[in-house]
Amino acid sequence: MTDETATEQDVRAVAARARDAAVELATLTRAAKDGGLHAMADALLDGADAVLAANRRDVEAGRQDGLSEALIDRLALTPERVAAMAQGLRDVAGLPDPVGEVVRGYTQPNGLEIRQVRVPFGVLAMIYEARPNVTVDAAGLALKSGNAALLRGSGSAFRSNGALVDVLAAAAEKSGLPRESVQLVPGTDRSSVGHLLRARGLVDLVIPRGGAGLINYVVENATVPVIETGVGNVHVYVDRSADLDMAERIVVNAKASRVSVCNAAETLLVHRDIAEEFIPRVLTALGEKGVTVHGDESFSRHEEVVPATDADWAAEYLSLDLAARVVGDIDEAIAHIRRWSSGHTEAIVTRDLDTARRFIARVDSAAVMVNASTRFTDGGEFGFGAEIGISTQKLHARGPMGLPELTSTKWVVTGDGHVR
Amino acid sequence: MTDETATEQDVRAVAARARDAAVELATLTRAAKDGGLHAMADALLDGADAVLAANRRDVEAGRQDGLSEALIDRLALTPERVAAMAQGLRDVAGLPDPVGEVVRGYTQPNGLEIRQVRVPFGVLAMIYEARPNVTVDAAGLALKSGNAALLRGSGSAFRSNGALVDVLAAAAEKSGLPRESVQLVPGTDRSSVGHLLRARGLVDLVIPRGGAGLINYVVENATVPVIETGVGNVHVYVDRSADLDMAERIVVNAKASRVSVCNAAETLLVHRDIAEEFIPRVLTALGEKGVTVHGDESFSRHEEVVPATDADWAAEYLSLDLAARVVGDIDEAIAHIRRWSSGHTEAIVTRDLDTARRFIARVDSAAVMVNASTRFTDGGEFGFGAEIGISTQKLHARGPMGLPELTSTKWVVTGDGHVR
Repeated sequence: MTDETATEQDVRAVAARARDAAVELATLTRAAKDGGLHAMADALLDGADAVLAANRRDVEAGRQDGLSEALIDRLALTPERVAAMAQGLRDVAGLPDPVGEVVRGYTQPNGLEIRQVRVPFGVLAMIYEARPNVTVDAAGLALKSGNAALLRGSGSAFRSNGALVDVLAAAAEKSGLPRESVQLVPGTDRSSVGHLLRARGLVDLVIPRGGAGLINYVVENATVPVIETGVGNVHVYVDRSADLDMAERIVVNAKASRVSVCNAAETLLVHRDIAEEFIPRVLTALGEKGVTVHGDESFSRHEEVVPATDADWAAEYLSLDLAARVVGDIDEAIAHIRRWSSGHTEAIVTRDLDTARRFIARVDSAAVMVNASTRFTDGGEFGFGAEIGISTQKLHARGPMGLPELTSTKWVVTGDGHVR
Repeated sequence: MTDETATEQDVRAVAARARDAAVELATLTRAAKDGGLHAMADALLDGADAVLAANRRDVEAGRQDGLSEALIDRLALTPERVAAMAQGLRDVAGLPDPVGEVVRGYTQPNGLEIRQVRVPFGVLAMIYEARPNVTVDAAGLALKSGNAALLRGSGSAFRSNGALVDVLAAAAEKSGLPRESVQLVPGTDRSSVGHLLRARGLVDLVIPRGGAGLINYVVENATVPVIETGVGNVHVYVDRSADLDMAERIVVNAKASRVSVCNAAETLLVHRDIAEEFIPRVLTALGEKGVTVHGDESFSRHEEVVPATDADWAAEYLSLDLAARVVGDIDEAIAHIRRWSSGHTEAIVTRDLDTARRFIARVDSAAVMVNASTRFTDGGEFGFGAEIGISTQKLHARGPMGLPELTSTKWVVTGDGHVR
C-alpha cells in the first residue's frame, strides 16, 4: 500500500484528545472499566463482519505487495481469531485493578501521613507490527490500567486496525467511557511515528513491540519515555556439572518449542569438560527437530554443523537455527553472554550451587533461569494473567510486564497544617 | 574558563571502564561498600587541602568570568563544607543496602520458583550544576547502590570536582574496590555531554540535576534512559473551606522558607468565596517576608501587586516572587494546575473531604499535599535518609528518589528441569 503521512498537528491533535480522555479514565472505578471491557468484547463479536471485511482488504493488498505467507498468516483474521480477541478482553476484565493500590504508606514522626499510590500513566502509545490482535490486547490492558491508548500498528494492517478501533471506541462510548479511550495514530509512514515520539507533555509512555529495527528507531527518535521490549538473543549454558538428560531437554525446548518468540534460545554454550559427551547427543536431538547448528571449531567437527562467525553470536535468528560454542569455564560463559546478549533471558543447567549463584549474580539480564527453559520468561508463565510485552531495559520495568507495570505512582501527603 | 572538548572515543572509553567496574560493584557485600564509603570519608578529610586549593582556583576563575556572588557562594568550599561531605558519606554507609532485596517471590503451580530481586543499574551518569558537594553525594549513593558513577558537573567547578574524584577514586582503590567506581566524564562542553547521552549499552541511566535548560537538553539528546528531575512550578490552592490561619502559614512557608529549591511554591490559587477575606492578609504576610506578588485582576487591585501575564503562570521563579490568581471553584484550580504545572508538587488547603479527594484524584503531579506545605516533598522529610533528586517523570521513579530508586530488578527463576 501507499504510505499515508500525517502532519505533526494531526498527531498532536489526536494525542491531545487522548490526554483529555486520560483525565476521565484515571478516576474510573474498576466496575466501570470492566463494564467497558465486556462491552468491547460484545461489540467485537457483533461487529465481526466489518472487521473481517476490512481484514480481507488488508490481506489482498498484502498479497499484491508480495508479503510472505508467514506474514499473511499473522495478518489474517478468522471468526475464531476475533472470538479469541473478545475472550482476551473478558480475561483482562477478570484481573485485579492495579490503580489505587497503596504501594507504601507510613506516618512520619511529625505526624505527616505519607502514601505512595498507583496511578495510571495517562496516555500510553503502542507501536507494533503485523498481528491485529495486539490492537485489541493493548486497548484492553490500557483501559484496565486507566490509560488512554494511542495505537500504531503496521501499515499492512491499517484497515483491520481501523475497523477494530472503530468497534472498540464506539463500545467504550456506549458504555459511558470516553470514545477517545482508544484511538489509532493517523498516518502509516515513519514521519507520523516521529511526531508521536516527540509529543512530550501529551504522551506519557511509548512501548514499541517488534523487531530490533523498530525498537532502535523508537529509541533513537523518542523524547517521550520509552520501554524497550522483546529483542531476545537468549543463551543456554550447560555446565560441567549438568544433568545431561535435563540439559538436552531444556536446550531442545528452549530452541525448538516455538522459534519465532523472543524467549527462544539463540546460542548454546557448553562446558569443555562435558563437550565430548554432550555435543553428539544434543546435535542428534536438535537435528530431529530440524535445527541447524552454527558452531565453533568443537561443534563444527561434526559434519551437520555450519561454522559460526561473529554474526551468529549476535543473531536473534527467530528460526530453526542455533549458534553453539564450547567454553572453558563458567566465567568464559558469563563473558560471552555479557558481550553478546540483548539482556532478555539466559539459562544455566547445573547441579553445582556455587556455579548457579555465580551465574545468577553476574549475568545482567532481565531473567536468569536455573535448570528451567528460557521459554518461561512470559507474563502468563509468571502468573501475571496478561502481558503487554517483555522489557529488556532496566528502567521502570524489566522482564514480563503486566498491568501494574502500566502504572506510575503518586505521593499523597496529608497533614493538619504542617510547615517546615 | 575555556571549554575543553572530549571526543566520542574519550567519553566511551571512560564509560567502558565504568561498565567493567560495575560488574564488580554489583556483587559486593554491604560491608565492603560501607567500608569503601568510610574510606572515602577519611580520605576527604585527609585530602581537604588539595580539594580546597583546586576549589580556590575555580572560585578565582569564576570571579574573572563574572559569576554572580550567589553562584560563587554555591561553588566555594570551606573546611566545614568538606567535613559535611565526609559526614554525608558516613550517613549513606548507615543506610540499608537496597541490592538483593527480594521485591516479589512466589512458587508457580508447576513448582517453578520465581523471585524478583533488586540489582544495581550498572553505570549511573549524573549531570549537574554548580555545587561540588553533589559530586560526593552522587558518588556515595551510586556506590551504596552498587552502581559505577560517571559524574559531569558544571565547567565552573571542574577543578574542584576533579580533585574530589581523585580523592574518592584513590580511596576506593585503597579499600579494595575498583578505582573506576567513580569517574569524571572528560570535557567541559556540551558536545562531551552529548557523547555520554548517546552511549547506549555503556550507560544504563542518566540523571540530570539542574535548571529546565539542562533537563531539556538531556531529554532532547539522550538515547540512554533518563530520569527528569527537579523542575518545580509548584502550586498552593486555598479552598473556600480552608482554615485561613493554616492557609496563611502554609502559603508563607511554601513560598518563603527557602526560595531557591524545587519544592518552593510559585503560584497561589485562591477560591473566589474567601478571596476578599484572604487576599489582604496573605499579601501582608508575604510582604513581611519580602515576597513580590504577580496577581490577576482580583489581586492586582492591591497596589503592592504586579499584574500577572502568562509568563508568570509558567514561571519557576526560584526567587521571592509568587504568581497569584482567584479561581471560581476546585475544578478551575485543577484545570489551572494541569495547564501550567511541571508535575512536581501541588498543595490544597481545605476542610472539605470531597474537595480534598477530588484534588488528590485529578491533580497529576508527583506529590499532592493536603493541609501541608509543598516543602515536604523531599527525601529527608519522606524518611529516605538520602536523596539523589526529585523525579518529575512517571517512568520508574516519581517524586523523591532514595537508594532503592537507583536500582533495577532481575527475575531469578529456579526449576528442576522445567520445560514447556
